[in-house]
Amino acid sequence: MTAAPREFLDYVDAHKDAFVQRLSDAIAIPSVSGDASYRKHVHEMGHFVQRELNALGVDTKLIPLGPQELDGQTVELPPVVIGRLGDDKSKKTVLVYAHYDVQPALLSDGWTHDPFVLTHDKATDRLYGRGTSDDKGPLLAWINVLEAHKKLGIELPVNMRFCFEGMEESGSEGLDDFINAESKPGKYFDGVDCVCISDNYWLNDVTPCLTYGLRGISYFKVNIQGPAKDLHSGLFGNCVHEPMTDLFHLFSKLVTPHGKILIPGINELVAPLTAEERARYERIDYSIQDINESVGASIALSSDKAEVLMGKMRYPSLSIHGIEGAFSAAGAKTVIPAKISGKFSIRLVPDMTPENVDGLVIKYLEAEFAKLGSKNKMTVENLHGGKPYVADPNHWNFVAAAKATEASASFYGPWT
Amino acid sequence: MTAAPREFLDYVDAHKDAFVQRLSDAIAIPSVSGDASYRKHVHEMGHFVQRELNALGVDTKLIPLGPQELDGQTVELPPVVIGRLGDDKSKKTVLVYAHYDVQPALLSDGWTHDPFVLTHDKATDRLYGRGTSDDKGPLLAWINVLEAHKKLGIELPVNMRFCFEGMEESGSEGLDDFINAESKPGKYFDGVDCVCISDNYWLNDVTPCLTYGLRGISYFKVNIQGPAKDLHSGLFGNCVHEPMTDLFHLFSKLVTPHGKILIPGINELVAPLTAEERARYERIDYSIQDINESVGASIALSSDKAEVLMGKMRYPSLSIHGIEGAFSAAGAKTVIPAKISGKFSIRLVPDMTPENVDGLVIKYLEAEFAKLGSKNKMTVENLHGGKPYVADPNHWNFVAAAKATEASASFYGPWT
Repeated sequence: MTAAPREFLDYVDAHKDAFVQRLSDAIAIPSVSGDASYRKHVHEMGHFVQRELNALGVDTKLIPLGPQELDGQTVELPPVVIGRLGDDKSKKTVLVYAHYDVQPALLSDGWTHDPFVLTHDKATDRLYGRGTSDDKGPLLAWINVLEAHKKLGIELPVNMRFCFEGMEESGSEGLDDFINAESKPGKYFDGVDCVCISDNYWLNDVTPCLTYGLRGISYFKVNIQGPAKDLHSGLFGNCVHEPMTDLFHLFSKLVTPHGKILIPGINELVAPLTAEERARYERIDYSIQDINESVGASIALSSDKAEVLMGKMRYPSLSIHGIEGAFSAAGAKTVIPAKISGKFSIRLVPDMTPENVDGLVIKYLEAEFAKLGSKNKMTVENLHGGKPYVADPNHWNFVAAAKATEASASFYGPWT
Repeated sequence: MTAAPREFLDYVDAHKDAFVQRLSDAIAIPSVSGDASYRKHVHEMGHFVQRELNALGVDTKLIPLGPQELDGQTVELPPVVIGRLGDDKSKKTVLVYAHYDVQPALLSDGWTHDPFVLTHDKATDRLYGRGTSDDKGPLLAWINVLEAHKKLGIELPVNMRFCFEGMEESGSEGLDDFINAESKPGKYFDGVDCVCISDNYWLNDVTPCLTYGLRGISYFKVNIQGPAKDLHSGLFGNCVHEPMTDLFHLFSKLVTPHGKILIPGINELVAPLTAEERARYERIDYSIQDINESVGASIALSSDKAEVLMGKMRYPSLSIHGIEGAFSAAGAKTVIPAKISGKFSIRLVPDMTPENVDGLVIKYLEAEFAKLGSKNKMTVENLHGGKPYVADPNHWNFVAAAKATEASASFYGPWT
């Protein structure tokens, strides 16, 4: 195993407090992208990131993405912070992605302290604050790495490009177009050999992970219209076809309580499992206890670790999310809801795509609804779709990342 | 047919404007019982009713019902306005019930004018305002009747008692205890021969109705607890048992899309239909078109009028109302809800009671949930229950009411 240079690791230890202070400064900027009233702080955070990169000799630019309609007003999208360091033709060029915006966080959500004040919990020796792990910590880790190399005079083994956005928690609005435009020959991302996305999960809190795939999605809204307005169950129960009854019958046909999708043709789209893949899942440092702990209940679908992991990552899933238009408050309202929209989505894996899935789903819903014999009207909308992504974990990019992770883990891990 | 006296009907015609003004004054008092900020207006309305009764020689009292916790504050329950007129031992004594509170109403709910300003729509020649039909109009009709008798010097053929409450739209809080206490020998309601409840519906807008029964209710909340917190479907879909999947399977076993209750033993509790009853439903002035018009869609469960009416009135029903704890907003959230509560209720008819129904329902839910093989936890709560009520439509009280209704209908109807 190649270890990280001793002097590098010593630098990290010696500057721990400064690194924590840098994170603390970043957490103090409430860069919530989903709320117009916080938008100025998202821009402020973009400037913060640019200053940190500039201080380390990175050639940066703030790329404006134009206006956005949010909360009834027109606001400026936060800029993409791009950066460039090194242009040695004999080296590989690595593009690093991370995001500097965060999800909303309020004390009233259940935080035990101000979420925008980085707080050290002595009992667990952990740092808490909105964005600490998602995604300011991982972003600043790159700044720390660059600083250590620069201060120690260690040459970077690769050329680097940076792409830090401020809209990840709000659909990455504007990013796709920018990336597509800049990926053309002669443009900013031309010549990039591989990408490192610094915004991912571990499976437990012991063993680092490299993510090489992401399930896609097809999200469906199933509208059932019955009466013209909500009815009182005392006056109209057992007198007309009720949309809620139809919806419960219909959605009970989607997936079994054990997670098996019942829509014909869906499971046949899944790429066959190879022996190598199966073996890879067997080797993952994970247990049924890990899954039960991470969800806070002993509700894993299987007692076979590899099966659970494959269910989570390698196979599709179908989840029912809720109903719009029905009674959803506390208490005991005796309403027959008139027009409801059931929502569910399917997580897609290769070789599923929104295109080859959606038709099967809609055809099945229509056929099953017809079997109910209801006089209510059903329509299906597709709210959004995204293709699955999977890379080859044997690609040199992942092999290099695995080596680097092991090298640092041998000094700092396990992270218990 | 016994017609109402000509002079009585002439009085009504001559005083139409004054009667409309009285209704307008009542509508102007926003006596919304379900909102603490309106509570003073409910009390104001109670005093209004008392003044109107006093002016016609009724001996009245305002009965306080004590304090109530509402919207986080302690407010005084609106009083029951009771009244007494006549004590002739040779006459029957009729107790009249109505209520003077209303449901909330805001312009933003879709009203085309201020709901607390009585408004005459010239196109339809109808009066609109919150409480016009439910229930200030019917309450004031009794005041108008008393006024006509008094001014014309016509002797009332019965002794009268009045019981007007201000909490009907909010569960009639406090009324039960008062009625039970005052129904004992020597108390206020002692000696009442029959009751007229002036708070009912017509089946269409052509033919008046006399209501001689009301279905009861058992309302159930079915809690399914899965993970300790909401999960992301991308990370956990097809990995754990999902409460929403369980709930859709479970509730699909409750009732068919055609309204047939599937819980064993429930339908067997229903009193057998007699030939006389069936014939009565056949005679009701009603059509499938009436039901479709009243709900605004052609969704009647049957094309047989008597079947539809009996489904609505004479047989039980099961309606699914909604889910608490699931995603219910607009948009496409990819949540796996952790803890959800499905709500449904059963409308009860003789000989069903909450007592003989609830055990069957809970036993069935537990058995069906067990069949799902889910590791999630299910619990069932009964949120409230009420017995069904049915009177004999051949009782002299209904026969008299039918004659009176026909007599006035012959002058004023049909109400198209």
